[in-house]
Amino acid sequence: MNFTKADLMYEGKAKRIYHIQGEDYLIWMSYKDSLTAFNGVKKEEMTGKGQLNNKIANLIFHYLTSKGVSTHWVQNVDDNNTICRAVKIIPLEVVVRNRLAGSTAKKFGITEGSSLEKPLVEFYYKNDDLGDPFLSDDQALMLKAVESPSTLDELKQKALKINQYLLGLFHQCDIDLIDFKLEFGWDQETKELLLADEISPDTCRLWDHKTLEKMDKDRFRRDLGGVLEAYQNVYDRLLTTVS
Amino acid sequence: MNFTKADLMYEGKAKRIYHIQGEDYLIWMSYKDSLTAFNGVKKEEMTGKGQLNNKIANLIFHYLTSKGVSTHWVQNVDDNNTICRAVKIIPLEVVVRNRLAGSTAKKFGITEGSSLEKPLVEFYYKNDDLGDPFLSDDQALMLKAVESPSTLDELKQKALKINQYLLGLFHQCDIDLIDFKLEFGWDQETKELLLADEISPDTCRLWDHKTLEKMDKDRFRRDLGGVLEAYQNVYDRLLTTVS
Repeated sequence: MNFTKADLMYEGKAKRIYHIQGEDYLIWMSYKDSLTAFNGVKKEEMTGKGQLNNKIANLIFHYLTSKGVSTHWVQNVDDNNTICRAVKIIPLEVVVRNRLAGSTAKKFGITEGSSLEKPLVEFYYKNDDLGDPFLSDDQALMLKAVESPSTLDELKQKALKINQYLLGLFHQCDIDLIDFKLEFGWDQETKELLLADEISPDTCRLWDHKTLEKMDKDRFRRDLGGVLEAYQNVYDRLLTTVS
Repeated sequence: MNFTKADLMYEGKAKRIYHIQGEDYLIWMSYKDSLTAFNGVKKEEMTGKGQLNNKIANLIFHYLTSKGVSTHWVQNVDDNNTICRAVKIIPLEVVVRNRLAGSTAKKFGITEGSSLEKPLVEFYYKNDDLGDPFLSDDQALMLKAVESPSTLDELKQKALKINQYLLGLFHQCDIDLIDFKLEFGWDQETKELLLADEISPDTCRLWDHKTLEKMDKDRFRRDLGGVLEAYQNVYDRLLTTVS
């Protein structure tokens, strides 16, 4: 199907969302070349980053859809643009950790990369002004991020299921999936709970299985260099695996 | 019953715990005059503080016991010392909030004193080196702070029940109970889950109902002065209420 991009609906740190002519329940998602970290304090433009993330996210969302996961993904437009269902985003970042790294490893004084007996699901409150703070289920309910505890349980169950699929996919790519962030939203038309946003090296920690080399945004956060090369490497491996 | 204090078992920031001669399942709790805040960074000695907290905690634990709450409290020795059951402390600070104040108000950018639709229970991981970080239920289970989710639920239910009793008690004292911190432990002999530690102006936020004046450790944290006077005032009101 062909779509015509209409006016800008929303601009985030990594994507622009546009209306689509004649479509009330679809949106046009355009990936930016901006890399940001530490709640936007660190920022850089990297030509080609948006394109890589779009292509990676498309492969992953297509894969998850094939496994029966309900997502906002509809179809690819071109290297930088994708058509998705219009959703009302739940203001929670849903983080799944297979090994401890980042803020949680630091908070508990645990060595980065430590294994977990079972995957850990965490919620962070999506609010740039507050720095996306970590919160408990009870705090999420207090803030009315969702209406009921059962939705939080549903988010956790969906996230853990997605984790199983992604672990399998990245395992085939010889990549260890350390952790990742998901966002969910309510389909504006059907009211179904859908996996939304993107899944890419911007939103995952991906380590080469053999060398443990980082292949994700930590290369940018920690000034390790070779950001685009790593993202390209992830894309190449995914493409070989899924095709 | 008379008890003889034996060797020091443990010294914390606000109390010393001693063995008791011939008693394996009881401990001697001695309140210190130290006031500490911000994980011990701010510290001061205040003669008489320990005594006031011991007397306040005794009144409150006696009151809770009379309501059927299982606590470690056994009997008062004198103004500074109390006999308690020996417990294995669960490494979680259980915080109950009736109105938002302190770290949670700050984290979510909510005005101090804002009302909550219902009381909020939070867990903090008891670890001075880590600064007692806030954690979710899933993180508490990951760290094996307790063995099962059902214990976390039991802690929450007990904390909410205690909140009901304390709200009633302080209401009679013309004091608003904003929030408070509880600790629980397993009775070394019976393995029962007991309310432990202390409940005092060191561990609660208490505001005068009419003037909203602070009557708790925030007077020390925020250099408001009149710390001992406020604690004495809390004691006097409690004494009049429960006697």
